[in-house]
Amino acid sequence: MMQHTISKAAVVGTGVIGNGWIARCLAQGIQVTAFDPAPEAEAKTREAVARAWPYLEKQGMHPEASIENLTFAPTLAEAVAGAPFIQENVPEREALKGGVLKEIAEAADDDAVIGSSTSGLKPSTLQAYCTGPERFVVAHPFNPVYLLPLVEVVPGEATSTHSVEKAQAIYEQLNMKPLVVRKEIEGHIADRLIEALWRESLHLVNDGIATTEEVDTAFIYGAGMRYALMGPFLTFHLAGGEGGMGHMLKQFGPALELPWTKLKAPELTDALADQVIQGCESQTEGISITDLEDRRDEFLLRLNELLEEFWPGANVSKGPL
Amino acid sequence: MMQHTISKAAVVGTGVIGNGWIARCLAQGIQVTAFDPAPEAEAKTREAVARAWPYLEKQGMHPEASIENLTFAPTLAEAVAGAPFIQENVPEREALKGGVLKEIAEAADDDAVIGSSTSGLKPSTLQAYCTGPERFVVAHPFNPVYLLPLVEVVPGEATSTHSVEKAQAIYEQLNMKPLVVRKEIEGHIADRLIEALWRESLHLVNDGIATTEEVDTAFIYGAGMRYALMGPFLTFHLAGGEGGMGHMLKQFGPALELPWTKLKAPELTDALADQVIQGCESQTEGISITDLEDRRDEFLLRLNELLEEFWPGANVSKGPL
Repeated sequence: MMQHTISKAAVVGTGVIGNGWIARCLAQGIQVTAFDPAPEAEAKTREAVARAWPYLEKQGMHPEASIENLTFAPTLAEAVAGAPFIQENVPEREALKGGVLKEIAEAADDDAVIGSSTSGLKPSTLQAYCTGPERFVVAHPFNPVYLLPLVEVVPGEATSTHSVEKAQAIYEQLNMKPLVVRKEIEGHIADRLIEALWRESLHLVNDGIATTEEVDTAFIYGAGMRYALMGPFLTFHLAGGEGGMGHMLKQFGPALELPWTKLKAPELTDALADQVIQGCESQTEGISITDLEDRRDEFLLRLNELLEEFWPGANVSKGPL
Repeated sequence: MMQHTISKAAVVGTGVIGNGWIARCLAQGIQVTAFDPAPEAEAKTREAVARAWPYLEKQGMHPEASIENLTFAPTLAEAVAGAPFIQENVPEREALKGGVLKEIAEAADDDAVIGSSTSGLKPSTLQAYCTGPERFVVAHPFNPVYLLPLVEVVPGEATSTHSVEKAQAIYEQLNMKPLVVRKEIEGHIADRLIEALWRESLHLVNDGIATTEEVDTAFIYGAGMRYALMGPFLTFHLAGGEGGMGHMLKQFGPALELPWTKLKAPELTDALADQVIQGCESQTEGISITDLEDRRDEFLLRLNELLEEFWPGANVSKGPL
């Protein structure tokens, strides 16, 4: 996919997420033109990039990476003109995002890829504001954008296959892990999970069950540590012992009907159980549960050591919660 | 709290969780008596403990730790007699757990601590089956129990303060991080969060949005990596940039009303917003957001390296999803 390699990018909207994209692009030796209407934007961005730089250096940079490759443009049109790749990161309000994307689409090259960092809006909704909507994808990253690898790439109804392929190649060039989301849905995939967790966390505080600190502690030192290596499905595949997900669903399937959260579960039909069990088996094809357990345990041991450095006392009883 | 130091423990029910408790106790030099009615239980437990042992050795053991300190008793009464600490881990059905706890309570010493690993049942419900219910606490661990530090200690209405203190001291002796849950609720704290995540994950598969592997990938490489260090609240405190949680709630509060998950959020009242903002500030007292960001970034950098060892290609575009 070398033909898709880019040497220039435009970033529109330079809050926490926009600045993360800028730092990630610069670290890959890309020339970045940025635009944000706030008067103090450029100074704040340069500060944010300087703060991220040492971590990017430790991670390993492109030989031509330089903080000097960042320019702020006086207008949105000047920022995006001639850029083969444009990433939009303005606040999460449809009318605002739509208006900005309309301007971007008008000023951008015909064959540019236009990505939006929207966390919740659907691509078909946003691309309706654009001329040349086939160039548009949702490309939703995670904070801190310069270090976390995932980007959800979501095509809308009008997005061309060619643009999805170009977008994947561009995000790979940025050393990211693009996950193409096959169906549009509010919140894509990850933010539906994060938001479910967040809403349940808010209920716990709102109902006086726990403080924010107790919720955080309860999550990190059991579940959170596991989720750095394995997602919700693989984690439960291993909780089932040698019987894997099949055994787990038999044992904990009935709990789906209990009020363990404010979220109503889908009915655990045979079809859903099959999908989940087959899914886990296909994910782990050729690796036995025992081998997965060994990998998890070795990982957790090392993660315990790592956490101990970062939150002294994190994984022992004597430390702060 | 040296007066609470134990040298013996009884473990009733030896599935994945019970075996985890046995391994953890043995690693701390404790004599363990186990009971499980399944004929193959002892052989399976010895295999599970042998498998966990090298990880416990690497983590650092008590000088008297030995696999030889495990005995299986022929009856439940013999297993628990004379033990100052008993951990129950039978399947998650109230009638079954209640019956086993009744037997445990009858055979146990008057001043023993009786902990139940129940993931969802309330302590007041379970202790109603026990004579001497003041000795009973829920003590909910996380798989793998021998490596993950968290245990949720939940007293019921009849639990004595003395028993809660003894339980805390015992779990600390087991090198765990006991979190006392102040209010009884189905699923305690952590499993409400895990279950919300799990239910939303099942909806995504059930609605044909994503496969189990896509859900796992979408969760690990963005959110999951962050949750190994910071919980749902602190993560969003940092997503707010220098404005912290206050800014974050202003920006993403409205999203609570959007269908980003199947879970209905609580109304974001001023009182709830205050609790959440004050909570984050008190959790991070004396540490600036910039310092927290530095800690997070350095951690993620190291976690990226660690993940790369365990899932080769995990954090780069070329690897498997």
